[in-house]
Amino acid sequence: MRINKMAAVPENRALSYGVFKWSSYSSTYLPENILVDKPNDQSSRWSSESNYPPQYLILKLERPAIVQSITFGKYEKTHVCNLKKFKVFGGMSEENMTELLSSGLKNDYNKETFTLKHKIEEQMFPCRFIKIVPLMSWGPSFNFSIWYIELHGIEEPGVVQPCLNWYSKYREQEAIRLCLKHFRQHNYTEAFESLQKKTRVALEHALLTELHDRLVLRGDFQACEELIDRAVRDGLFNQYISQQEYKPRWSQIIPKSSKGDGDDNRPGMRGGHQMVIDVQTETVYLFGGWDGTQDLADFWAYSVCENQWTCISRDTEKESGPSARSCHKMCMDSQRRQIYTLGRYLDSSVRNSQSLRSDFYRYDIDGNTWTLLSEDTAADGGPKLVFDHQMCMDSEKHMIYAFGGRILTCNGAADDSRGSEPQFSGLYAYDCAAATWRLLREDSCNAGPEDVQSRIGHCMLFHSRNRCLYVFGGQRSKTYLNDFFSYDVDGDHVEIISDGTKKDSGMVPMTGFTQRATIDPELSEIHVLSGLSKDKDKREENVRNSFWIYDIARNSWSCVYKNDQAVKENPAKSLQEEEPCPRFAHQLVYDELHKVHYLFGGNPGKSCSPKMRLDDFWSLKLCRPSKEYLLRHCRYLIRKYRFEEKAQTEPLSALKYLQNDLSLTVDHSDPDETKEFQLLPSALFKSSSDFIPLGFSDVDQTYAQRTQLFDTLVNFFPDSMTPPKGNLVDLITL
Amino acid sequence: MRINKMAAVPENRALSYGVFKWSSYSSTYLPENILVDKPNDQSSRWSSESNYPPQYLILKLERPAIVQSITFGKYEKTHVCNLKKFKVFGGMSEENMTELLSSGLKNDYNKETFTLKHKIEEQMFPCRFIKIVPLMSWGPSFNFSIWYIELHGIEEPGVVQPCLNWYSKYREQEAIRLCLKHFRQHNYTEAFESLQKKTRVALEHALLTELHDRLVLRGDFQACEELIDRAVRDGLFNQYISQQEYKPRWSQIIPKSSKGDGDDNRPGMRGGHQMVIDVQTETVYLFGGWDGTQDLADFWAYSVCENQWTCISRDTEKESGPSARSCHKMCMDSQRRQIYTLGRYLDSSVRNSQSLRSDFYRYDIDGNTWTLLSEDTAADGGPKLVFDHQMCMDSEKHMIYAFGGRILTCNGAADDSRGSEPQFSGLYAYDCAAATWRLLREDSCNAGPEDVQSRIGHCMLFHSRNRCLYVFGGQRSKTYLNDFFSYDVDGDHVEIISDGTKKDSGMVPMTGFTQRATIDPELSEIHVLSGLSKDKDKREENVRNSFWIYDIARNSWSCVYKNDQAVKENPAKSLQEEEPCPRFAHQLVYDELHKVHYLFGGNPGKSCSPKMRLDDFWSLKLCRPSKEYLLRHCRYLIRKYRFEEKAQTEPLSALKYLQNDLSLTVDHSDPDETKEFQLLPSALFKSSSDFIPLGFSDVDQTYAQRTQLFDTLVNFFPDSMTPPKGNLVDLITL
Repeated sequence: MRINKMAAVPENRALSYGVFKWSSYSSTYLPENILVDKPNDQSSRWSSESNYPPQYLILKLERPAIVQSITFGKYEKTHVCNLKKFKVFGGMSEENMTELLSSGLKNDYNKETFTLKHKIEEQMFPCRFIKIVPLMSWGPSFNFSIWYIELHGIEEPGVVQPCLNWYSKYREQEAIRLCLKHFRQHNYTEAFESLQKKTRVALEHALLTELHDRLVLRGDFQACEELIDRAVRDGLFNQYISQQEYKPRWSQIIPKSSKGDGDDNRPGMRGGHQMVIDVQTETVYLFGGWDGTQDLADFWAYSVCENQWTCISRDTEKESGPSARSCHKMCMDSQRRQIYTLGRYLDSSVRNSQSLRSDFYRYDIDGNTWTLLSEDTAADGGPKLVFDHQMCMDSEKHMIYAFGGRILTCNGAADDSRGSEPQFSGLYAYDCAAATWRLLREDSCNAGPEDVQSRIGHCMLFHSRNRCLYVFGGQRSKTYLNDFFSYDVDGDHVEIISDGTKKDSGMVPMTGFTQRATIDPELSEIHVLSGLSKDKDKREENVRNSFWIYDIARNSWSCVYKNDQAVKENPAKSLQEEEPCPRFAHQLVYDELHKVHYLFGGNPGKSCSPKMRLDDFWSLKLCRPSKEYLLRHCRYLIRKYRFEEKAQTEPLSALKYLQNDLSLTVDHSDPDETKEFQLLPSALFKSSSDFIPLGFSDVDQTYAQRTQLFDTLVNFFPDSMTPPKGNLVDLITL
Repeated sequence: MRINKMAAVPENRALSYGVFKWSSYSSTYLPENILVDKPNDQSSRWSSESNYPPQYLILKLERPAIVQSITFGKYEKTHVCNLKKFKVFGGMSEENMTELLSSGLKNDYNKETFTLKHKIEEQMFPCRFIKIVPLMSWGPSFNFSIWYIELHGIEEPGVVQPCLNWYSKYREQEAIRLCLKHFRQHNYTEAFESLQKKTRVALEHALLTELHDRLVLRGDFQACEELIDRAVRDGLFNQYISQQEYKPRWSQIIPKSSKGDGDDNRPGMRGGHQMVIDVQTETVYLFGGWDGTQDLADFWAYSVCENQWTCISRDTEKESGPSARSCHKMCMDSQRRQIYTLGRYLDSSVRNSQSLRSDFYRYDIDGNTWTLLSEDTAADGGPKLVFDHQMCMDSEKHMIYAFGGRILTCNGAADDSRGSEPQFSGLYAYDCAAATWRLLREDSCNAGPEDVQSRIGHCMLFHSRNRCLYVFGGQRSKTYLNDFFSYDVDGDHVEIISDGTKKDSGMVPMTGFTQRATIDPELSEIHVLSGLSKDKDKREENVRNSFWIYDIARNSWSCVYKNDQAVKENPAKSLQEEEPCPRFAHQLVYDELHKVHYLFGGNPGKSCSPKMRLDDFWSLKLCRPSKEYLLRHCRYLIRKYRFEEKAQTEPLSALKYLQNDLSLTVDHSDPDETKEFQLLPSALFKSSSDFIPLGFSDVDQTYAQRTQLFDTLVNFFPDSMTPPKGNLVDLITL
């Protein structure tokens, strides 16, 4: 849910409107009631006559305006008719509206304001009509009620008129471009030219016009290949590439064995350990963990370049570093080349006022020295001893943020009145320079919008560019949390991204307890690798790995892969694909510079051998088609078509072309493409009639087929250069 | 709900499809489950994961086909997840689908089949994709389940291929026509001409091209008026007229008093009387009724032409006709000029085996004689003595149909075992020539699809062209019935039009007990005048009259007027409008030849004076704009614009034109138009810039304004002649 940011814009003010149309209303709950704000009057609301769709209100603004936000008033108490889900549309006419918002109201008494989409790229667009479409009420079988609506925006003619002009010009232009595209596809040359001459609207970038000329008009395929080649080199395919789905590529790392002696030249089996990565030197640091029987204190560094582990210390305690531990957290200051560690899990048997002190260490990489920053952070105003918390480094401001984790207590100790009831640690900031702790948020139950709920086993990531912490998932006692919020560390402001009620049928990862997440500030993406649920009965749900990406800018989740799907779609494939088995208590770090993930160890959750821990080490690359791949692919498409055209007239030279030029461009490692290639010769015997595409019966067949190839190639270019994606005829409905 | 009529079509067969896409599914209720029909398997169904819209299934047919019907299988028991409301869409691509059906399933275990829209006018269109969109489940807050789907239609290429060709040609043509319209509007003359030359697509009928030439290009307004004049005379505006809403015109009839002596030259106050009309002679016959204290036996004829009542008989019993009675029924055989009457109400006090015999009379108009057809129709295999039944004449086959009514019994009489429990009479046919009765349907509780439920106070109308009886409304003991069905008298087949569950927020009249209905076989319309509920607590609901029209072909209800609305919108207006007060026990007859309704008497339901009955007499005409009105209106539009254009250049002659030519065309009885006319002179001082319409900044202002007028005038012509209604730019969304 978005918070109203409009306060910033000066011109923004309340817009006067009337209720123009409605789907229905019941008894005295007239649509006009939304014009007045009477939270204490039960009857001052619009209520639909049923919840059978479509139900809606259409508001008409007094004059066209840039509508920037909508505010919903409510009843003074919670109400079953409040809108749990709704959409808002807007436009200059009733028939032609765009979606401006899709959201929902909290079932409380607070007014809620939502920013409405009012720009395309940077251009503001005007609305005369606003349509509110309720989708779900809080009481499932109840009618929809709206108590009060306020619209805010700009109506100054000085601002709006230019937008109006832009709007009608925009539609005119897009219409003309669709015509031009259609005319050219159908070879209505004269109409095309006179329309272009008259309107001076450009169908596409000159480069593509040239491509069309070479390919469709002249059939100069060589020139096309060169043109594409140049385009790729000039980076014109980058936008396309950035829009392609990632394909995960896991590969197990088999490190070089130094001096080749024994297994002790690499970290042993463990879970609950910690890892950080120094992206400059491409070094992964690993410390501690639980090997199934005991806590560990060994400290390792893995060099990607040398593909080798080095043991920095067999026992850090001996070097005045931290004692053996697991379920602690580590974070790295790449600028200053320092590593911090905080927290640990202690079995209740060994807990006492001594052991329960929360020590806090820093490791200096270059000096190879440990420093005890605090014997007990609680004493310094920081967190008590916690485990399964989260910690992030903010190198820029030289700050550390620590959030959540369960506070360890001596059960049954006299002084501990609430030993039974679990306590969770709040959100703290540590100023490394001043060596001071500050409590930013106490554990709360999200009473207010600025409160946060502490937890364990959650994910927390720091976005070094927008300087926000992103928190999601985790667990509180028995409840798994599905909420997702960000915390602006400079503004000290919480924003709820998803309250966890949203149910997008599998479009959101099943966040739970043991997933692992990383962030890529450059791409503004969060990556999530599903974990294996600790709780055995829940394992069916995600007994296979899935990998998710959250696009911060678009506020949208997408699933890179789910193995159960892979299996369904292509059993063979997923068997070949080697990947780490599902697990928990493992570690995942991300090198955002080289875009590589590293995963080590963890607990495979084998009920038969509960003490078993893993020591496998993996790298994960998320791959998209490369420029080279696309160039080759385009060449293949062009030559394949060139062959098919040849095949119609000069079969022999076509066959020669197939064997020499075409085969060069085939990706023989790709089974589908290879198969296609093998079937091509049959084209030599195909009757040409098989080739005419539907709806092109009016133009010469060669022209139609070349046009199809052109449209295919055009898809690789950025939208700003291409003709409109749509087709004129597709706008015609029956 | 429609019954599958497809059985008739030979080629029709099951179409093979796969499930292509889905909005969501829960646990094991996979979309594919709809492919198999397992009514006894709880889990063999698709179930959505939520009922939060949009939820859908998209099916992909193996090959393009004409999809004529869809069949829904169900679970063997009723189920909360059954679809109470759903829509079905279809098309050749996912993006471009048309609505094919909007309906709902009964919550039972019977398969249901629905005919899908598969033609535009007479042209069948092909589909490759079928989208099923659940809207409501029977359990309000439950997810949607579909158990089994079968599609039937035609896939023979011989039939489908031509449809495919038509479809792509159709879309291409419509696209081109939109271009042509747009180009002409914007004066892209060259592009317009070359496109038309190349595609040979016609934008409009030649007549309209001429109109455009005269009006927009030449500004020859005189020629335009002549053109419109011819068009109106040639009936080109008839389609437009037929699409306009009816306006009701009530007028109270004050009959001439013959010999001027006293009140007894017209029927007195009464309710429960009967009326029929002879449309040839325009004569209304009225017989019997209850005046508040006693049954009546007087018999009257009203001549529309003479506007005069004639008393045929003061007491028909004296002329061996029926005794005094009320709540009887009458029907008229216009061919043979005969009137039949059957049934009556008897107060329990006077009931005995003698009086309970159901006599049956015929009146011969020309002979002015009554004939007793039967002393007791029950004895002849016809209905027992009933009241509040219905009776219709089928002159063509010389048959009478009688349905429903409550059977009168001697309460507490020894022989009557079930005196307490009301009995209702079934559907009977009387063969006038053979003088024999036949029972067509016994009273039933709609167990099977061919059963009908008897009732009292319902409406029954005979459609002499499609030879169906239409039955709706009425009451059974305490329950008001809202169902609507037809009975094909030749095919002896019942078709349920609406099972009464439908709730279209006030789009269906509140049928109940006392509404009156008539039928217009020529227009295939049923007219309903709401009555006043007999039951006092229910009167709020329709304390004012409303008038409804059911379009049999379109299967759609529309409300001609509702007084409560009239009042809200324009209090003044509805006060002027004189109309009969709401009532029950009144009579309404319809002259389908002259399109006039006649209403007489009834019970105003005044709790204060329960014995009060009415003797007011009304005619009701449903009016649409006449040819003359439209011609005048078009003239007005043309001259108004002509004046505005003049006003820019030659104010003086413009003013003269205003006073002479323009004022002639103003409807001075129409306040709005008069007001507009009075404001016109101000145009003389308006700066021309006020005139430029949005989106036409690129063309000459005069051209743009003339184009607007042209588009207005075009709206009066039939769609087959006009350019496409839509505009190219309106297809462009942000």
